[in-house]
Amino acid sequence: MNPFSDSPAETIAALGEQKLLTRIRRWLGSAMPAAPHGMGDDCAVLPAPRGTGRRRAALVTVDPVIYGEHFDAAIPPRAVGQKLLSRNLSDLAAMGGSPDAAVVALALDPRVRLDWLEGFYRGLAATARRHAVPLVGGDLACHRGGLVATLTLLGRAAGPRVLTRAGARIGDFIAVTGVLGGSLASGHHWRFTPRLAEGAWLAARPEVSAMMDLSDGLGKDLHALTPPRARPALFEDLLPIRRGHDLRAALGDGEDYELLFTLRGEPAAARRLVMAWRKKFPRVPLTVIGRLEPASAPGAGTIDLSAHHGFEHFG
Amino acid sequence: MNPFSDSPAETIAALGEQKLLTRIRRWLGSAMPAAPHGMGDDCAVLPAPRGTGRRRAALVTVDPVIYGEHFDAAIPPRAVGQKLLSRNLSDLAAMGGSPDAAVVALALDPRVRLDWLEGFYRGLAATARRHAVPLVGGDLACHRGGLVATLTLLGRAAGPRVLTRAGARIGDFIAVTGVLGGSLASGHHWRFTPRLAEGAWLAARPEVSAMMDLSDGLGKDLHALTPPRARPALFEDLLPIRRGHDLRAALGDGEDYELLFTLRGEPAAARRLVMAWRKKFPRVPLTVIGRLEPASAPGAGTIDLSAHHGFEHFG
Repeated sequence: MNPFSDSPAETIAALGEQKLLTRIRRWLGSAMPAAPHGMGDDCAVLPAPRGTGRRRAALVTVDPVIYGEHFDAAIPPRAVGQKLLSRNLSDLAAMGGSPDAAVVALALDPRVRLDWLEGFYRGLAATARRHAVPLVGGDLACHRGGLVATLTLLGRAAGPRVLTRAGARIGDFIAVTGVLGGSLASGHHWRFTPRLAEGAWLAARPEVSAMMDLSDGLGKDLHALTPPRARPALFEDLLPIRRGHDLRAALGDGEDYELLFTLRGEPAAARRLVMAWRKKFPRVPLTVIGRLEPASAPGAGTIDLSAHHGFEHFG
Repeated sequence: MNPFSDSPAETIAALGEQKLLTRIRRWLGSAMPAAPHGMGDDCAVLPAPRGTGRRRAALVTVDPVIYGEHFDAAIPPRAVGQKLLSRNLSDLAAMGGSPDAAVVALALDPRVRLDWLEGFYRGLAATARRHAVPLVGGDLACHRGGLVATLTLLGRAAGPRVLTRAGARIGDFIAVTGVLGGSLASGHHWRFTPRLAEGAWLAARPEVSAMMDLSDGLGKDLHALTPPRARPALFEDLLPIRRGHDLRAALGDGEDYELLFTLRGEPAAARRLVMAWRKKFPRVPLTVIGRLEPASAPGAGTIDLSAHHGFEHFG
C-alpha cells in the first residue's frame, strides 16, 4: 500500500491530532497498558519489574527534532543538539523526574554537511554534560531528503512521587512558570533551560495536584489538566506574557517549555507555595493565572479559550 | 547553517560510515561513557543506578524504519510495524536480553493514509503482544515529505550474563543461526522472527565468547567480532545460504537478522553445543562456518572477505 494519498479525506491530516490519538489507542489495544504506563502524559511510567522493590518510578520519554519543523538553516547546529535533549528534559521535569541516560537515533540525508553534524553532536554533548545525562548509544540511518533526530530519555522520579496530568480538581488554582508566547520569534525555543529542579521541587509539594510542560500553547495544553465538568477560568491581567508579545501569542504559540500545574487548597496555601518558590528559585517567575471552576459557572471576566487553539501538529 | 551541501566533499557520504562513527565518538567526548555503556554494540548497557544492587543489566536499543530505505509501497503496512519492533528485538537477542517495554516516535507527512497508519499500528501491536512487550508511550510529529518510525526498546539481560561483541579470541569457532542472503528478495526482512530465546540460551553458555546480530551482511559485520591480529577464516562449503542465492548474497546482503557468535574451546566442545542446540531449537539451523585465525596465517581455501563489503549506509 502506498503510505501517502493525495486525497485529503483519506489522510491523517483530515482526522486531526486528537481523534488520531484516540484511534491509535484503539489500534494498539491491549499492547498499550493503561495510564500512567501508556500514552497520554509527558513521560511514560515504566511498569516495575517483578520482585525488584524499586523505590522510585522509572520514566521514559521520546521527542524528535525534524528539519523544516523544529529547526531550519537559521538555527545554529549546536542549538539543534541542545534543543533535542532539552525538550526531552522538559518532559521529564513535568513529571518531577531526573535523567539517567539517553539514546539518539539519526535519520540523515547523505548530503548532510559534516560540519553541521559536528555542531549538532557538540551541542548535544554540552547539554548532556550540563545535566549529567550519559549518551549511552544510538543509531545512524540513511534518510534521503530528510533530517530527523529522535532522542529517547530514561529517568526516574526525583522523589517518591510522580506527578501526572491527572489529579486536578475543581477549585484548584492554575499556575505557570516563566513567561509565555513568542518562543519562535525570540529564539526561546532553542535557548530555554528545562525546569528540572523546579519540577522536582513541585512534585515534592503535596498541594501540587497535576503538572505538564507547555509545548503546544497554554490555550491547547490546559485542556489536558482540566478534569471532566470543569472549566479553566484564566484572567488576562494575570498572564505572564513575554515582552513584545500579546495574549494571543501567550495562549496560542507553542514551545514555551514552561511548567503548568494545579494547586490544591485555600488561597493562603497557594500564597505560601509562591513565597517558598521565590526563595528557592528567585530568578524564575511563578504566577497563579486562574482557577478550575465548575463548567456550569458563569465565565464573566475570564479568557474565552475556545478562541485559542494552540499548535495543531498535522495542520 | 544549511544542514545540506551539494558539494560531496563536505558531506557525511564522503567520509563513510566507519570514519563517521569515529568522529561522533570524538565529538561526544565524555558525554558518552565507555563500552559497554556507550556506542558500538547492538544494545547499550545502562549504568546501574547507585545503591540499587540490580542483578540483571538493563539494556536499551533504538532502530528506525524509514520510507524508501527500510520499506516501500510494496510492503504491507502491518509488516512495517512488525519489522520495526522485530529489528529492535533482534538487537536485544544479540546481547542475550529479554524485552521490558518500548516507545515509538513517528515523524509523519500529513498526507499519510489513515488506513496505512492503522495497518502499521496493528502490526506493531500484534508483534508486541507476541513477545509480551508493552508499548508504554510515544510521540507523533509532523514531517513534510517523509515517514520515519523510530522505536526504542528497553530490556534486561535474560540471565546473569550480557554478551557483547567483544570477547572473541584467536582459535574461537565462528557460528551463525539460520540461513543467509536474499533477505530483501525473499521477504525475510519483514517476516523474520527475532532470535530471542536462542540469544538468551547462547548467552547462558560459558563457551560462547561474543555475539551480534547480522544486519549489514556477514562480510561486513564479522569484522566487529574479530579481535586485533586475528582473521576470520570462513569456508564456502560450510556457509548456510538461502535457497536460490549465492555466496555473494550470503556475505553482502543486509538484514539477515540472524545471530553471529564465537565459540571458545576444542572442536568437541563446539560439537556438544551444536548437539544441545538441535535438541533445544530443532527448527533453527545452527552452523559452524569457520574459525578465528592469526592474521599472519595463510588463508588458503578460505573466503576472501576483502571482496565483500556488505551494506554501506550512506553510499
